[in-house]
Amino acid sequence: MPVGLSGLPELLPVTGIRWGVAAAGIKRSGRNDVALMEIAPGATTAAVYTRNAFCAAPVALAKRHAAAAATRYLLINSGNANAGTGEPGKQAAWASCQALAELVDCQAEAVLPFSTGVIGEPLPVERIRQALPQAVAGLGGQGWEAAARAIMTTDIVPKGISKQVQLGGKTVTITGIAKGSDMIKPDMATMLAYVATDAGVAQSLLQQTLRQAVNLSFNSITVDGDTSTNDACVLVATGQASVAFASESEAGFAEFATAVTQVCQALAQAIVRDGEGATKFITIDVQGGRDAAECRQVAYTVAHSPLVKTAFFASDPNWGRILAAVGRAGLDRLDVDKVAIHLGDVCIVRDGGRAADYTEAAGQAVMGKEEITITIELGRGNTEARVWTTDLSYDYVKINAEYRT
Amino acid sequence: MPVGLSGLPELLPVTGIRWGVAAAGIKRSGRNDVALMEIAPGATTAAVYTRNAFCAAPVALAKRHAAAAATRYLLINSGNANAGTGEPGKQAAWASCQALAELVDCQAEAVLPFSTGVIGEPLPVERIRQALPQAVAGLGGQGWEAAARAIMTTDIVPKGISKQVQLGGKTVTITGIAKGSDMIKPDMATMLAYVATDAGVAQSLLQQTLRQAVNLSFNSITVDGDTSTNDACVLVATGQASVAFASESEAGFAEFATAVTQVCQALAQAIVRDGEGATKFITIDVQGGRDAAECRQVAYTVAHSPLVKTAFFASDPNWGRILAAVGRAGLDRLDVDKVAIHLGDVCIVRDGGRAADYTEAAGQAVMGKEEITITIELGRGNTEARVWTTDLSYDYVKINAEYRT
Repeated sequence: MPVGLSGLPELLPVTGIRWGVAAAGIKRSGRNDVALMEIAPGATTAAVYTRNAFCAAPVALAKRHAAAAATRYLLINSGNANAGTGEPGKQAAWASCQALAELVDCQAEAVLPFSTGVIGEPLPVERIRQALPQAVAGLGGQGWEAAARAIMTTDIVPKGISKQVQLGGKTVTITGIAKGSDMIKPDMATMLAYVATDAGVAQSLLQQTLRQAVNLSFNSITVDGDTSTNDACVLVATGQASVAFASESEAGFAEFATAVTQVCQALAQAIVRDGEGATKFITIDVQGGRDAAECRQVAYTVAHSPLVKTAFFASDPNWGRILAAVGRAGLDRLDVDKVAIHLGDVCIVRDGGRAADYTEAAGQAVMGKEEITITIELGRGNTEARVWTTDLSYDYVKINAEYRT
Repeated sequence: MPVGLSGLPELLPVTGIRWGVAAAGIKRSGRNDVALMEIAPGATTAAVYTRNAFCAAPVALAKRHAAAAATRYLLINSGNANAGTGEPGKQAAWASCQALAELVDCQAEAVLPFSTGVIGEPLPVERIRQALPQAVAGLGGQGWEAAARAIMTTDIVPKGISKQVQLGGKTVTITGIAKGSDMIKPDMATMLAYVATDAGVAQSLLQQTLRQAVNLSFNSITVDGDTSTNDACVLVATGQASVAFASESEAGFAEFATAVTQVCQALAQAIVRDGEGATKFITIDVQGGRDAAECRQVAYTVAHSPLVKTAFFASDPNWGRILAAVGRAGLDRLDVDKVAIHLGDVCIVRDGGRAADYTEAAGQAVMGKEEITITIELGRGNTEARVWTTDLSYDYVKINAEYRT
């Protein structure tokens, strides 16, 4: 079960955003598998996408459409990733957009397509086309929760959060939803997250805001190190709250950007907490590095180590595995005698070796917890980075060995 | 159980090499945990070691000793890695060598120490000292199998091989043993492999021969991507077979070097076959790359993907996971439309998408086998690389979650 995730909190509507859902029969369960976001005219939209070279057909098309026209609709299907599908996949992504455009009378380029699910199966475009009228008919401002459920694949729980900030006496709302629990080591963003605000934000500023938020959230998590072919994160600013930003120096913008980052972090952490088979939520703090890149390199090496992850699963303070992972992270001329490692508030490694005052009982007390922080001090600079991850359990193997059966 | 490994083959003595073993009580099982190799005077010795920054105390000391004197003894203990042990660990490694040197009357620098087992526990030097007389008393040319068993930790089976080649009418014998089944992604060699030949080989030529053999064997395998703190591979040439090489241009040397590589490959593959929880033996062939580095990068990205590994465990031809791993391997400007992927002799991806003639039944037939080859054609050069690995099973998690309990 997800680590420390209770039910979905209340998801506040964002003026200018409506969601509709439908069941197209792509998921074998018969549950909703199409979600449609309608964006009011005048909004700005920013997006970041996977860097996987085999990016899916909808990802490639969404990039082209976003560059060609103002975005009015996000059309999302779950159950099928439309990735590794070659030329027919590209045609299918385009045909989905075209079907919606005809139905709602807009340009096909105003529709951004997104897909998530099994890789390599043909996308059943005709089923999507037939489900669209239902999704359009149901469009409403309260649809965030239904959308959060419709985009789920192997997720156990839907993921979403709302945040309100007061800026100059005005209330700004930010609401976001996300899905994902495997193939999670986003390289630009994770498949899939949709965040909207009723603030107004100039296009280039919105893109910059999203990129910064994603670096500190979706780009700082990993479940299994596998970067998806379909990752995408979209941020929409509808500009209907009487608060608008044209440049980052304006009053209140820093506060707004922080709130966007917090929403993205909450969604990113929810994905980790619902990571496949997760029984622990691990925060890896690397400090004292020369630059952020080497801190992230160490954090990810520890986060991806199957030996470290199974030790967390077993609540075993086998700290030698953490030390070995730090040592193989490939840092140039690391002076191990300056390295210190803490497990929670217990010092396990000092001056490159086991701390003299370390006891197995103290380590065991920390490892028994459901949420654990590892702090790694490199002793060679002033930069830090933080990554969130999970343990590796029987259930991870079980879920992924049985995924398609 | 190990994949495709039947019992240990006959291990032929190498003139000039004697092995003795003893139980020092480091392993809780009470089994032999000390192995001693005695090398006749006049031999040359080459070694490669882990690149993990947290290299263990014995690794650091072995390097210094090898540079200071001709090697006469390899002193190996299992059950305790003497890694992450700081200054006391360095003293313990030196004290072990000193104890043996006093017993057999040689310089301490003529002894190379090696340790494998749990990280971060103090090495019980006194127990090793007390066990040494028994190991020395038992020294004999037939001791290879006993040594292969004494160096085991979580290995299920002992690993060893002998090979004989005829060079200019003379018979040259090469025998090697190895251990290892987790923390296996060697960065110079794997913990631990010992190979000896009765040929004579000049020191620098021997080191070059070993480095080449290791690159094509121990440095081309991975179980879990975790590089050990203790990896080491040693090659001894006793020069007692009336065949000696001073330079690589001499007649028969190429054949000899190939035989050494084959011995190392057999040992490396045995480690993978005995990889923790392994149920499949996977060969990943990457072809058509610009250079060996990028071919290895793709091969290791696929080999380390938990999603690919669990699909192999499930015998599930979920080839989209292989495609996604290739796509995230970070190759500069990979043209996915030129990529082809074969599972055994079944083409699954052609021109960047699912092969038109691919059927699930054909993929399933390959995935059901115990030994599987994936061939990835990058279509951008003429270089290739090959990596061997395992699947990821429930038992990997079980073994590593319970390792210390």
